[in-house]
Amino acid sequence: MDLTAEQKSEIEALRSQSATTRRACAPHLEEILYEPFPVLDHGFVRVIDYMGDDGAVVQAARVSYGKGTKKVQSDAGLINYLLRHRHTTPFEMCEIKFHVKMPIFVARQWIRHRTANVNEYSARYSIMDKEFYIPTSAQLAAQSEINHQGRGDVLQGDEAAEVLALLKEDAERSYSHYELMLNENSSGNKLDENKQGLARELARMSLTLNTYTQWYWKIDLHNFMHFLSLRADSHAQYEIRVYAEVMLEMLKRWMPATYDAFMQYRVGGTHVSAKGMDVVRRLLAGENLSQEESGMSVREWRELMESLGRDT
Amino acid sequence: MDLTAEQKSEIEALRSQSATTRRACAPHLEEILYEPFPVLDHGFVRVIDYMGDDGAVVQAARVSYGKGTKKVQSDAGLINYLLRHRHTTPFEMCEIKFHVKMPIFVARQWIRHRTANVNEYSARYSIMDKEFYIPTSAQLAAQSEINHQGRGDVLQGDEAAEVLALLKEDAERSYSHYELMLNENSSGNKLDENKQGLARELARMSLTLNTYTQWYWKIDLHNFMHFLSLRADSHAQYEIRVYAEVMLEMLKRWMPATYDAFMQYRVGGTHVSAKGMDVVRRLLAGENLSQEESGMSVREWRELMESLGRDT
Amino acid sequence: MDLTAEQKSEIEALRSQSATTRRACAPHLEEILYEPFPVLDHGFVRVIDYMGDDGAVVQAARVSYGKGTKKVQSDAGLINYLLRHRHTTPFEMCEIKFHVKMPIFVARQWIRHRTANVNEYSARYSIMDKEFYIPTSAQLAAQSEINHQGRGDVLQGDEAAEVLALLKEDAERSYSHYELMLNENSSGNKLDENKQGLARELARMSLTLNTYTQWYWKIDLHNFMHFLSLRADSHAQYEIRVYAEVMLEMLKRWMPATYDAFMQYRVGGTHVSAKGMDVVRRLLAGENLSQEESGMSVREWRELMESLGRDT
Amino acid sequence: MDLTAEQKSEIEALRSQSATTRRACAPHLEEILYEPFPVLDHGFVRVIDYMGDDGAVVQAARVSYGKGTKKVQSDAGLINYLLRHRHTTPFEMCEIKFHVKMPIFVARQWIRHRTANVNEYSARYSIMDKEFYIPTSAQLAAQSEINHQGRGDVLQGDEAAEVLALLKEDAERSYSHYELMLNENSSGNKLDENKQGLARELARMSLTLNTYTQWYWKIDLHNFMHFLSLRADSHAQYEIRVYAEVMLEMLKRWMPATYDAFMQYRVGGTHVSAKGMDVVRRLLAGENLSQEESGMSVREWRELMESLGRDT
Repeated sequence: MDLTAEQKSEIEALRSQSATTRRACAPHLEEILYEPFPVLDHGFVRVIDYMGDDGAVVQAARVSYGKGTKKVQSDAGLINYLLRHRHTTPFEMCEIKFHVKMPIFVARQWIRHRTANVNEYSARYSIMDKEFYIPTSAQLAAQSEINHQGRGDVLQGDEAAEVLALLKEDAERSYSHYELMLNENSSGNKLDENKQGLARELARMSLTLNTYTQWYWKIDLHNFMHFLSLRADSHAQYEIRVYAEVMLEMLKRWMPATYDAFMQYRVGGTHVSAKGMDVVRRLLAGENLSQEESGMSVREWRELMESLGRDT
Repeated sequence: MDLTAEQKSEIEALRSQSATTRRACAPHLEEILYEPFPVLDHGFVRVIDYMGDDGAVVQAARVSYGKGTKKVQSDAGLINYLLRHRHTTPFEMCEIKFHVKMPIFVARQWIRHRTANVNEYSARYSIMDKEFYIPTSAQLAAQSEINHQGRGDVLQGDEAAEVLALLKEDAERSYSHYELMLNENSSGNKLDENKQGLARELARMSLTLNTYTQWYWKIDLHNFMHFLSLRADSHAQYEIRVYAEVMLEMLKRWMPATYDAFMQYRVGGTHVSAKGMDVVRRLLAGENLSQEESGMSVREWRELMESLGRDT
Repeated sequence: MDLTAEQKSEIEALRSQSATTRRACAPHLEEILYEPFPVLDHGFVRVIDYMGDDGAVVQAARVSYGKGTKKVQSDAGLINYLLRHRHTTPFEMCEIKFHVKMPIFVARQWIRHRTANVNEYSARYSIMDKEFYIPTSAQLAAQSEINHQGRGDVLQGDEAAEVLALLKEDAERSYSHYELMLNENSSGNKLDENKQGLARELARMSLTLNTYTQWYWKIDLHNFMHFLSLRADSHAQYEIRVYAEVMLEMLKRWMPATYDAFMQYRVGGTHVSAKGMDVVRRLLAGENLSQEESGMSVREWRELMESLGRDT
Repeated sequence: MDLTAEQKSEIEALRSQSATTRRACAPHLEEILYEPFPVLDHGFVRVIDYMGDDGAVVQAARVSYGKGTKKVQSDAGLINYLLRHRHTTPFEMCEIKFHVKMPIFVARQWIRHRTANVNEYSARYSIMDKEFYIPTSAQLAAQSEINHQGRGDVLQGDEAAEVLALLKEDAERSYSHYELMLNENSSGNKLDENKQGLARELARMSLTLNTYTQWYWKIDLHNFMHFLSLRADSHAQYEIRVYAEVMLEMLKRWMPATYDAFMQYRVGGTHVSAKGMDVVRRLLAGENLSQEESGMSVREWRELMESLGRDT
């Protein structure tokens, strides 16, 4: 993550500002407000603003459930109850806004979460920065043989070197052609006085998908947790998962009680199917059950046995 | 608006709290934070929380449009430009949360705006308060003869008195029957030791639609303005319009520049159809045009002439 | 459910129409298209239109997952896989539209599902029908002592009779006062030539919450299943659950394979928390574990033991 | 647009299927169902499914406005009224589903319309086709000098030739490197038996933004018209506008009356600000007004004068 002097001083200015407010505050999140956390080779995430804290979730729940909630004494207990029973609306009462910089192919996965607000840097108006994602050697994985969506072993030796060289070469050359077509470099200087320069909205089409873009992204707490449960999951592509992992830590600073409940009931939980529950009950009753007798597919059986910590 | 001593001291406690924040603040909105503004006979609106200010709209727009926006020098100028050209996403970057108390029939119109988050007081869990809306004499309008959705003249004399008496009687008796069925009054005291009391989720069905309910309601700035443009409009029912009018003043405190642009380009503006623009051009060219020659319907012609300040 | 002769002939006309289409069709749903299914004493649900079938879900999934899906041979197998792994977007590719008639207090719960499209009968424009929901004796439940949101035993004897009488009396009288205030009956006849009649948008406020309303309601298959999983659940209020149960049968006619997967992986499934999975693993390993040792709350422990079919 | 023999026969099979339905049908849209309409050099749009017709809009409106709508005799008249007065919910009662193939940079603009359902071809699972967009000479525009978002004159001579050559070269080489990294060509044949091949989800990052992707895209009629009003507009980028223009013709086939109202009240209409209306009124009253006296900015004044057909 390379910030210009201008960006650094802008962040410093924002971080040094302070005002008095009557609003609910999240002190641990205030500590890191505006501060960019590096992700991948040139990316970052930073929290720009937020609304509400654990108390705001409780406050909204108590309006809904009125005196009925008085029996649940602690705020943490009520938050656990809400998450456990899918009472999602109180979590919609809080918002968080991020500034994120990430490769375009990551942005394309990210935007599929439609319940967020987005303002992306526009390559119609502005020239893209000369920054692209190049994986580390440890991330240069082969296509998985068993999982059509996943990664297998890490590439070795010549093949790894060759791939890295191609990725760098393509990105570099595409960018230099971008400048040539624009007839302008990223500092805004004309390259050739006799040329007009292709329109920005056209020149961008030659950039590669690992070029970095950036956006402001705002989401409510309920949908943020849904995003995290999908993107901080082991099935998510590494390049988006690293963003989600940083943001999970930000959730912890913002909403300690909600974070604990989220880890307990969502991230750490398992959804067991009707047949799966039947299997568990029969196993507990001492029955010695095989996959064939279970009525489950091979794959489902394997997943269930793994979650139960049994050999398959 | 009748607040209990408990509610008053809760509001006082919230208003006297203060914290230091690095977030953007809206000082004029802070002044009235948590404070209930009376609406109708027992309703209110109060701002519970907010995120962002005029500067946050500008900040999001400058991310999108990058260096291209540098030419627009002032923040107010940029906000005007955004609203004028329907660039709505920067306005989605701000949020506001209200606590509203209103009659159920008003809540039913309000909830049709689906792009908001809601936590309503639940009559399954809790007993509804004994409060219902009774219009003032000035609001006791007859059905309009010409507009199927609107109000005509105010009722007079005996008819007005009779209507008022019926409204009061129905609400009062329904509520006392509600207590009878619950076998409990609003203070939670049992009425008859030998009775069980009907479930709350059933007993509520006998309440009238002017019974007051309340909710937390959170919305982004773009959708908030859309709500206001429909509900602060003269075609909206009076009983929801008075809420929108109070909230319009809250928008002014929150976002002075956005408020000005909203009044100029949305509230005060007029959408003229293709035929309407043709009529205006021909009138300006000196042509003496009649409705028949315009190709417009009688109603459209009348509405256009009114907006142009001409006799019809 | 009382249909007028006019309504009956309108439905007959729609059902007898037939056209040729190249679109995907769901033959078992076509059989009951437009046909009202009675719910409660005067309500109904009927399917008005639909888009897509099981094949359309598969088609959308195969676009996303391309050649990778070829290994999953059967459509039903792919649908199971999608539901099991929360790949929800292919289910958003189908839509269904209902015409529903239900009491207002049911409509108020229903509308909280915001991811649907709604056109409700407007009491600003039109006079409400004289129809209200009166529970059967079997549904006249007392407030639950242990569950703040639920129903307990059915009321008996005098208390039941008294409650029923109050419900009927309130609804009847409110409606007759509604006509008096409107100075018009539901057939549109003026009652007193010397009166003007209160505006409809005002007169409605005296109606009770068990008055029937109706709407067109359209939703995509993913959100429809989410609605059903919450509203066909045993925790849902009886008066909305009976609608969901009828609609569940309609889902079965529309999408047989999706219905089976939904029952297996959603309705019949159980979400087990991180601690819960730990308990199951220890029980399977032969450990004799008590609630105190589990780290779970009393309530969570009881719910887990019930789902495992063990005494608590 | 190059379809494989397999694709052609699949489309033929779908087009030759036919079923009997009781649902509303749109005969002119049925004619072209499944048929791909070419857009740009390799893209297309085709309608895959739809729900509802003009009559369905009217049907939903009549439920809402009840007897109040009986005065508006014709369906077309009611549709005009609804669009003119922003009664948008009846238009949400219809849906249309497209299969679209377009360059990735176009897909990135398109996806910003979040109120649609999307299933995109996944480059994590499958290998992208070797197809990329190369503009025609007539579209090779320079950056506009006056509009930061737009295109100016078309590039000429050597500069045009050079740009075209660069675009082609970048796309071709990026794709051949993509195959090299995958160690597989688009037919699925391994290139070098001694290599493993980079994971698909990584290899794609070197592709250029003009590579074609495809998706299923489903939207309701209200949001579809909103999409068209923005993307068929002269300010939209040419490469997305050509898609919107084809889809506008599909709207005309689907919903003739709604299409006419849309062209009259949205596409052909003009939103005039409060100050703008004041100017029009003063001009009509014979006042000779200048920009300075109007209180409008130079740009707003120019836009208003242009829409009024007056010299500026």
